[in-house]
Amino acid sequence: RINSERLWDSLMQMAQVGPGIAGGNNRQTLTDADNEGRHLFADWCKAAGMTMGVDTMGNMFATRPGTDPGALPVYMGSHLDTQPTGGKYDGVLGVLGALEVVRTMNDLGIETRHPIVVTNWTNEEGTRFAPAMLASGVFAGMHTQDYAYSRTDAEGKAFGDELARIGWVGDEPVGTRKMHAMLELHIEQGPILEAEGKQVGVVTHGQGLWWLEITLTGRDAHTGSTPMAMRVNAGLGMARITERVHQIAMSHQPDAVGAVGHCNVYPNSRNVIPGKAVFTVDIRSPDQAKLDAMKAEVMRAAHAVARDLGLGCEIEDVGHFDPVTFDEGLVKTVRQAAEKLGYSHMDIVSGAGHDACWINRVAPTVMIMCPCVNGLSHNEAEEISSEWAAAGTDVLLHAVLEVAEV
Amino acid sequence: RINSERLWDSLMQMAQVGPGIAGGNNRQTLTDADNEGRHLFADWCKAAGMTMGVDTMGNMFATRPGTDPGALPVYMGSHLDTQPTGGKYDGVLGVLGALEVVRTMNDLGIETRHPIVVTNWTNEEGTRFAPAMLASGVFAGMHTQDYAYSRTDAEGKAFGDELARIGWVGDEPVGTRKMHAMLELHIEQGPILEAEGKQVGVVTHGQGLWWLEITLTGRDAHTGSTPMAMRVNAGLGMARITERVHQIAMSHQPDAVGAVGHCNVYPNSRNVIPGKAVFTVDIRSPDQAKLDAMKAEVMRAAHAVARDLGLGCEIEDVGHFDPVTFDEGLVKTVRQAAEKLGYSHMDIVSGAGHDACWINRVAPTVMIMCPCVNGLSHNEAEEISSEWAAAGTDVLLHAVLEVAEV
Ligand SMILES: NC(=O)NCCC(=O)O
Ligand SMILES: NC(=O)NCCC(=O)O
Repeated sequence: RINSERLWDSLMQMAQVGPGIAGGNNRQTLTDADNEGRHLFADWCKAAGMTMGVDTMGNMFATRPGTDPGALPVYMGSHLDTQPTGGKYDGVLGVLGALEVVRTMNDLGIETRHPIVVTNWTNEEGTRFAPAMLASGVFAGMHTQDYAYSRTDAEGKAFGDELARIGWVGDEPVGTRKMHAMLELHIEQGPILEAEGKQVGVVTHGQGLWWLEITLTGRDAHTGSTPMAMRVNAGLGMARITERVHQIAMSHQPDAVGAVGHCNVYPNSRNVIPGKAVFTVDIRSPDQAKLDAMKAEVMRAAHAVARDLGLGCEIEDVGHFDPVTFDEGLVKTVRQAAEKLGYSHMDIVSGAGHDACWINRVAPTVMIMCPCVNGLSHNEAEEISSEWAAAGTDVLLHAVLEVAEV
Repeated sequence: RINSERLWDSLMQMAQVGPGIAGGNNRQTLTDADNEGRHLFADWCKAAGMTMGVDTMGNMFATRPGTDPGALPVYMGSHLDTQPTGGKYDGVLGVLGALEVVRTMNDLGIETRHPIVVTNWTNEEGTRFAPAMLASGVFAGMHTQDYAYSRTDAEGKAFGDELARIGWVGDEPVGTRKMHAMLELHIEQGPILEAEGKQVGVVTHGQGLWWLEITLTGRDAHTGSTPMAMRVNAGLGMARITERVHQIAMSHQPDAVGAVGHCNVYPNSRNVIPGKAVFTVDIRSPDQAKLDAMKAEVMRAAHAVARDLGLGCEIEDVGHFDPVTFDEGLVKTVRQAAEKLGYSHMDIVSGAGHDACWINRVAPTVMIMCPCVNGLSHNEAEEISSEWAAAGTDVLLHAVLEVAEV
């Protein structure tokens, strides 16, 4: 079993980097805080005897050698970046849990045939630069590096420039590594495991997603002296589409969610009818047919609302992945590890996107989930117990020992 | 008649200060651009032989002496601050038209019994610091100066600090001046005069307003992994209330308007259900009963939407004035001046709030309106013709000569 105190200590130390305003973290990707977190992680990897490689997307790969020089490595990891008002465990548990697995192997003098690599993927959250899982997406060949480098944040800063600014453009071309397997431990970010009283989630599938960035164009005008009939109100259009997204998600229950988390009106002045609104629709389903239907319905609804109000309407795809089925063999390995260790477990579908969803395209991949209190995530109050963290990491250890061949 | 070329020249020179991004202006109150505009105006006043007084709210008063030392001054003016994406004439025409009246009187060697004062009121727009007409409101005793000084912008900067920073805290206690009368020339900011083919609007009334800043509190959560039934979505609440404001205004047609121009969600991340939304409802009517009814309906609707979604809901009054009736005698004087000059004219109700609406509480007050193209204002594309500007300023000249007694 892993050293649960040491794991918790490391989680709490990382949480000191980029503190939030309410007990959580703001360690958004490619900020100074992200840089600081990366250095802390790199120092820990070095102390654990690993060698660090960094690719041109800033992805970090810390390697523990195997006994067979010809064997492909087994990867474990997740991400260290957070939401602007994020929690202490989302992503971080997967990276530091993987590090704890290596530390435990060192303690016990365990050797494996396959090398083991602990990974930190760049920009998983997708908040500062859409889409989410950007760097694992480039790694898996789903986006070009040029596309990734040119993505901009709300201030117009480019991903490529910010990656260079914090000093994490590595010399290794992205996506050239071959993997024997990849395992990602992550908190559930939803309420199911806790409600079902299970210690471990064996992730069989991940739901698909569309992020549709909608730009409505109306006409700035005075809120007082412009008659109702003369208004071309982009903010009203945004409100109506936000409501429609909710209704569309509700009409596809269960197995469908939808919301608008990001929205801005311009010029955002109390006495100006908004001449422009920009916002992002987030819709998801584990069912491909539902996902496709919801996307079509949202697009139709947006254009209909815009037409009705006389607004211009542009819709840009800023993030998309189809539902994912994880590797059957690895799923079985994870389930057996939980069983062997005596942890209560259940099969589960991931509601969130994860780096594993992209890596699954280029290597056998699986995820392990740990419960979180009240299913709360993307919130500074996100919480897990040290016991849950240890159980998930124990399962990760035993699954990896199996896959990497002790 | 006034010198219409000189007036237009001055309008175009002022428009160089704090240029916008699309041909208009961004000269928001208490910014460096505002400071620059104030100096340009002060230089022009000095060149026209006037003496400048500044009060503790930064209101500027340029005096042309009268022949009777005991006679109260006649005031003319408006504001030089603009919206973030504002036009070249909103407010500016009223200040520079008043200056042109004095320049014309100088040209013609006209003397008046009452002194004449040209005024620039601070923070009329209310965009950076709510409420609108803040400094004329303090002047008229509607707000305390402490209240005004403590108002903050979106970055948390206080009005009082910013006024000091740009160097316009005058030594004259605000509101101590007594006025014989106050006349404000302003563009209509609506479509009526142009549609009716009238050169001049004689403003008999102004509509009343409420600005209600609503804060909804929900719970930040993951857009993907949080089931629909577990969401407490402040952004959805904002969308619903925005729609209800529109419906309430429509249900009170005619003589009612309503919109949300300012809105923000937090943390404003694509994959976070907004845990907080802050936005301002703007509702107006010239009819006191309608205004009161709309306010009650908006408050009820906001609380009902919040209750339905499980959101906290706080509503703060950040701006309010009741419908205004301007001075009957002055209205007649303005109408007669337009008549005498041969300008087509009509009585009109102001859809926007103006400094004159507050000054009307402490002195006989009236407004003169000039058409604007397509009724467009609070838009960088705001436009008027030089002829319209001249007609309104001619009427201002003749009305002032009458009131100030040649
Ligand atoms: N795990 C996680 O929160 N990923 C961010 C991408 C998403 O929105 O699902
Ligand atoms: N005239 C003008 O635009 N004033 C701003 C205050 C208002 O919103 O009516």
